[in-house]
Amino acid sequence: MRIIMIGAHPDDCDGDGGGTAILLASMGYAVKFVSVTNGDAGHQSMGGGALAKRRMAEAREAGKRFGVEYDVLDNHDGELLPTLQVRLQIIRKIREWNADVVIAPRPNDYHPDHRYTGVLVQDAAYMVTVPNVAPDVPPLRKNPVFLYFEDRFQRPNPFRPDVAVDITSVIDKKVNALSAHESQYFEWLPWVGGYDEEVPKDQSQWHGWLLKRQDRELSPDMKKSLDHWYGAEKSAKAKYVEAFEICEYGKQPNEAELKKIFPMLGK
Amino acid sequence: MRIIMIGAHPDDCDGDGGGTAILLASMGYAVKFVSVTNGDAGHQSMGGGALAKRRMAEAREAGKRFGVEYDVLDNHDGELLPTLQVRLQIIRKIREWNADVVIAPRPNDYHPDHRYTGVLVQDAAYMVTVPNVAPDVPPLRKNPVFLYFEDRFQRPNPFRPDVAVDITSVIDKKVNALSAHESQYFEWLPWVGGYDEEVPKDQSQWHGWLLKRQDRELSPDMKKSLDHWYGAEKSAKAKYVEAFEICEYGKQPNEAELKKIFPMLGK
Amino acid sequence: MRIIMIGAHPDDCDGDGGGTAILLASMGYAVKFVSVTNGDAGHQSMGGGALAKRRMAEAREAGKRFGVEYDVLDNHDGELLPTLQVRLQIIRKIREWNADVVIAPRPNDYHPDHRYTGVLVQDAAYMVTVPNVAPDVPPLRKNPVFLYFEDRFQRPNPFRPDVAVDITSVIDKKVNALSAHESQYFEWLPWVGGYDEEVPKDQSQWHGWLLKRQDRELSPDMKKSLDHWYGAEKSAKAKYVEAFEICEYGKQPNEAELKKIFPMLGK
Amino acid sequence: MRIIMIGAHPDDCDGDGGGTAILLASMGYAVKFVSVTNGDAGHQSMGGGALAKRRMAEAREAGKRFGVEYDVLDNHDGELLPTLQVRLQIIRKIREWNADVVIAPRPNDYHPDHRYTGVLVQDAAYMVTVPNVAPDVPPLRKNPVFLYFEDRFQRPNPFRPDVAVDITSVIDKKVNALSAHESQYFEWLPWVGGYDEEVPKDQSQWHGWLLKRQDRELSPDMKKSLDHWYGAEKSAKAKYVEAFEICEYGKQPNEAELKKIFPMLGK
Amino acid sequence: MRIIMIGAHPDDCDGDGGGTAILLASMGYAVKFVSVTNGDAGHQSMGGGALAKRRMAEAREAGKRFGVEYDVLDNHDGELLPTLQVRLQIIRKIREWNADVVIAPRPNDYHPDHRYTGVLVQDAAYMVTVPNVAPDVPPLRKNPVFLYFEDRFQRPNPFRPDVAVDITSVIDKKVNALSAHESQYFEWLPWVGGYDEEVPKDQSQWHGWLLKRQDRELSPDMKKSLDHWYGAEKSAKAKYVEAFEICEYGKQPNEAELKKIFPMLGK
Amino acid sequence: MRIIMIGAHPDDCDGDGGGTAILLASMGYAVKFVSVTNGDAGHQSMGGGALAKRRMAEAREAGKRFGVEYDVLDNHDGELLPTLQVRLQIIRKIREWNADVVIAPRPNDYHPDHRYTGVLVQDAAYMVTVPNVAPDVPPLRKNPVFLYFEDRFQRPNPFRPDVAVDITSVIDKKVNALSAHESQYFEWLPWVGGYDEEVPKDQSQWHGWLLKRQDRELSPDMKKSLDHWYGAEKSAKAKYVEAFEICEYGKQPNEAELKKIFPMLGK
Repeated sequence: MRIIMIGAHPDDCDGDGGGTAILLASMGYAVKFVSVTNGDAGHQSMGGGALAKRRMAEAREAGKRFGVEYDVLDNHDGELLPTLQVRLQIIRKIREWNADVVIAPRPNDYHPDHRYTGVLVQDAAYMVTVPNVAPDVPPLRKNPVFLYFEDRFQRPNPFRPDVAVDITSVIDKKVNALSAHESQYFEWLPWVGGYDEEVPKDQSQWHGWLLKRQDRELSPDMKKSLDHWYGAEKSAKAKYVEAFEICEYGKQPNEAELKKIFPMLGK
Repeated sequence: MRIIMIGAHPDDCDGDGGGTAILLASMGYAVKFVSVTNGDAGHQSMGGGALAKRRMAEAREAGKRFGVEYDVLDNHDGELLPTLQVRLQIIRKIREWNADVVIAPRPNDYHPDHRYTGVLVQDAAYMVTVPNVAPDVPPLRKNPVFLYFEDRFQRPNPFRPDVAVDITSVIDKKVNALSAHESQYFEWLPWVGGYDEEVPKDQSQWHGWLLKRQDRELSPDMKKSLDHWYGAEKSAKAKYVEAFEICEYGKQPNEAELKKIFPMLGK
Repeated sequence: MRIIMIGAHPDDCDGDGGGTAILLASMGYAVKFVSVTNGDAGHQSMGGGALAKRRMAEAREAGKRFGVEYDVLDNHDGELLPTLQVRLQIIRKIREWNADVVIAPRPNDYHPDHRYTGVLVQDAAYMVTVPNVAPDVPPLRKNPVFLYFEDRFQRPNPFRPDVAVDITSVIDKKVNALSAHESQYFEWLPWVGGYDEEVPKDQSQWHGWLLKRQDRELSPDMKKSLDHWYGAEKSAKAKYVEAFEICEYGKQPNEAELKKIFPMLGK
Repeated sequence: MRIIMIGAHPDDCDGDGGGTAILLASMGYAVKFVSVTNGDAGHQSMGGGALAKRRMAEAREAGKRFGVEYDVLDNHDGELLPTLQVRLQIIRKIREWNADVVIAPRPNDYHPDHRYTGVLVQDAAYMVTVPNVAPDVPPLRKNPVFLYFEDRFQRPNPFRPDVAVDITSVIDKKVNALSAHESQYFEWLPWVGGYDEEVPKDQSQWHGWLLKRQDRELSPDMKKSLDHWYGAEKSAKAKYVEAFEICEYGKQPNEAELKKIFPMLGK
Repeated sequence: MRIIMIGAHPDDCDGDGGGTAILLASMGYAVKFVSVTNGDAGHQSMGGGALAKRRMAEAREAGKRFGVEYDVLDNHDGELLPTLQVRLQIIRKIREWNADVVIAPRPNDYHPDHRYTGVLVQDAAYMVTVPNVAPDVPPLRKNPVFLYFEDRFQRPNPFRPDVAVDITSVIDKKVNALSAHESQYFEWLPWVGGYDEEVPKDQSQWHGWLLKRQDRELSPDMKKSLDHWYGAEKSAKAKYVEAFEICEYGKQPNEAELKKIFPMLGK
Repeated sequence: MRIIMIGAHPDDCDGDGGGTAILLASMGYAVKFVSVTNGDAGHQSMGGGALAKRRMAEAREAGKRFGVEYDVLDNHDGELLPTLQVRLQIIRKIREWNADVVIAPRPNDYHPDHRYTGVLVQDAAYMVTVPNVAPDVPPLRKNPVFLYFEDRFQRPNPFRPDVAVDITSVIDKKVNALSAHESQYFEWLPWVGGYDEEVPKDQSQWHGWLLKRQDRELSPDMKKSLDHWYGAEKSAKAKYVEAFEICEYGKQPNEAELKKIFPMLGK
């Protein structure tokens, strides 16, 4: 089984699907993360190519810790638009990975790069099977399953957790891998979120601090999905969860197929 | 009454509205099909201008069989974006046809060309009345009714069959016209759908085979719409149906106006 | 409190939020209107720069009557697309105004310029806080509240009147300010709407005629919102109302914060 | 022999090649003028679609007086760029006219629209023969001769009058046809050139006034070309002249072929 | 007399026309420098908005030292293309400065941003007089003189020093002003040129070092122009020179007019 | 020594520099050919992805015969424009090859794809050294020498054969390699050139026929360059020659450096 997760920035797949990636990779699944932009804008004091190079190095390190390949496409951060050029880059990445499953954001989220990554992957969803498009890379003969990462937005309709993956067992590993993105988790995100005062001065406390930030209340929908897939007993113990919605474009998996994609699901 | 149907590819209007077109044309309504792209990508072994020319010839032949005019715009298949240039092409087509009714896909569907055709027609919907836009073609003084072709997608909201047209009486004629698109119905669609083995070797069996592929279960919504428009008795006999949703942009027709557009509706 | 309203054309903020602007400005709030296009297309007999100059003069006059600043960006009317260039223009306007609140159309409306203004403001919503974007203007350190103007469209989901402002007390002033847009309210809109015969020949009757056009039935949703914010008694007397929906992007205000933004709300 | 002249604005072909067009048309040659923009910007008090419509009407009238077909493409004046879309428009015009000769500006001139018209026609020069480009219009099987209109610019290299046509015999007819462009020759060009005071108030004097504006000193190069083609005697009598340079792209005509194109040349 | 110099990067006008600017400004001429890009790419270790902000601060400081206004447009360095958007930015800058003279690079130079700045200013040269273009800023009623900065390139034709200005008397002031661009003259240019080892460690030696880098042999053409304008005696003493070529687009000045523009010329 | 030749179509480097490539490769130089387009348009009966795939296979085979690497970029043939995206593709190719020498067409030629390839490589010439541009690939620390392929065009200035390489000794090998492009040399070029009747029916005669088409008269300039580099004696025997002009952008090589690049030069 070959999985490709596609995010807008070098740290997006990590936060939204990193625990699942660790679980899948540890089973021998081939997992790749792709960042559609090079992350050259989201920082309070660095920028441009200098920042992009730091972000690419962080992504490489994070990839190692997650056990996945990590590609960073050289498109400007904060300037992503659903152009044909980027669509073709994404089509090639999906084909080259010979993906069975593609996971990407929904086209509604607070950051325009996230939204347009969602649009771009949707725009690629059928095209990966068309031989005359990007003829330098052979088309996929089977349309992959396309899934959405979780988000919290309600309009025009809320995210639907078709699959909820309990990542409690690997949360430490996930946080450790996220920590490779120093410029994101300990610099930029706290600064722009207005909580930079809370970042521990002492780096040895970073892991604990970032771990605590993973806590959250599970929504009723999420809880229901967990119960469905894991049974009430296991579900009750799940503290950290990642969830995915089935996109209507691409192959529509049934429950058995979803279990094959996510073998960790099960009562 | 002048109707224009606008699809992304040379065969899209045909499949989604062809039966209705036959019924309307046979009543003397002026019906035009427009394909926004030239179909130069969707094939497993041909491509480019060579394929476009074949597709244009097939569309001409199909138009004859449907009893409609058929225009194919020379935009690349698989590369459609909602640009101003294509919007203006569509505005001109709608104006030149002096259309009372415009039918196009919703902006959500599995193929990006379909979605962007939907966006483009929405973007044209008001502009057909603005004289300073495309000043070389006089504006329409009455905003047409805009309708959507049926699709099966549920997100962000499902298609709503405001009108359901029983095309059972012309299904043979429709299939005969669809068959003009040889490169589509007997080559590309089976290949990309993975059912190319099922296409009869013997061309004399093509009609029967394609006819059988038109079978489908009607959804409860569709059934309800049929009952509304035709009454239970007639509705029960309808085997092949095409449905349309009223778009919020453009003139909002009441029931009487819908009946004038679709005179075949009726108990 | 600093408010910026962003519309597609020189008269859009006016019609959708002008009464609220009068109320806020009279309390000493700093209010700015921005028209993203220069209005150089929407007219039956003028066009181009000649029309744009007339529209800019009308906007200046309207701004005076509303008590707000009025900026008109020099982008072609009827040709607006969600480009990076226009997004950056909007980011700068929001930052330069140091806005606490941004009000713009939803990305669904009958006019493509309205829709794309909605998209553009959404695309700016997070970016106003990112220092590397538009580095010539300092970023906002607090994300503003983003609100939508009211519209009547139901798909993919209807407008939700989170806030309803009773503007009955200033309706005369609003109509007086709208009247500054002569080329819109007394020429273009009647012509394209097919009611140009109804415009009084005698200009002294224009005010009364335009005032009457403000009448409308309040929807149940709107009524409910009014009741919530004003109490049943005051709500019953509200004849003219402007409503706003909270956008999910940007700061999410609670009820107390909404009251601070709109101090006229209250029982 | 089929000639197509391509200018940037509705009056450019007229001024630069109008006399030649009259002579050729009167011999039965098929001559077409194309304006690549709709002329919707170049005026001091009108603009947009309103101006474009006036310009198109003037072009139609001028075409009648010249004895040529006149097409005005609906691209914004003052905004022309060498895009693929406009290149394709030009390719189609050349093919549809089945042109033996194409005449256009050089890519250096004072007005960017002129320069980019020059670039666009150069970009079309080979492509008119390629069947996969604009596959909806059959390619030309013979590459036309491409010529440049005269201009006065010296950098990077001066215009070279390979052919000089004596239009003295038709100068009245030319001025009469130019006069159809009232908004240009009697309004805009005088205003922007700062000589609007010189335009006669009395329209009956317009012809004489515009005729006098056609006077100019012939350059030595021009004189030499005239002598070459007409012999010294005839050349000495030539008062009004239009000249053309052979473009290196397209068919390279020899002297005999040039005489066939321009049968009025001769001693 | 109002002069505007337009370069690609924040330091281009400075190096090519800074001495002349000092001389003109000291006579009371109004001089403005415009950088079309924000300089956010040309550096070995910084980039993006962080670099742009440094570059803007350096430009402000340099402007003070030169005695000129300095505007930096927020377009990406290294990504400049001759788009309509940037052309309009330039048109506005020229109009708002009410420029009599515009100085810019030729469209041939080693850096694509320089070339495209040259193209963009050429594309603006006529348009500054057209009222319908950028209608929010009144057009110039007199076309300015357009000049080119000196460059060393020979193809397709060499720079022609129509005017040569002796800046020997202000060379110290020029070098002092150039030094405000620390990130350019002492960091980036030495690094990319491979002479970063030569930059003095001791900042007190920077002035002398940069002064020495201004030395160069004058070409015969340049010498001839100097002799023409200053006479042999003064010319012989000129050690530092800036030269300009008259662009064919815009007003063509005669010798008297050139002397009025450059009053320091004279024997 | 590492050489990269960049042409517009899969066969352009081959025809213009193939003999030189064979000579250099046989000395152990690393040579790469890049086609900026995928060749999907230039054919009379095939097109699109189907043609591109054939062209890519032909290029692979030709590369083997030449002894060079061959990359074909997936950009549409006949639609090339000097965009930032393609510029960046070219920057990466030059950097990844760590090129000492880059050879490309001049920006003037009969085919727009050739011209824009020339522009694109010029636009990349300096940028290959700028680290913030395409930060995912390390910049070159030494600017390569940029050369132009020979062409026959005279305006604005003629090609200048700074270097002329005698390829007589490898002409058979060159023709053999060219022959790998069957769809070009034996199908498309004869068809569009109108000499398809001349192509031998018998494929065993193709080599001889294509060899004979390589004959041509050497221009005086070319002869002079040959004499300069090879001496009169050797020069007199040179029957097949490829020539190159030094581009002003990039490193300017002296005669010794040219000999190091082209060690086959010599008396």
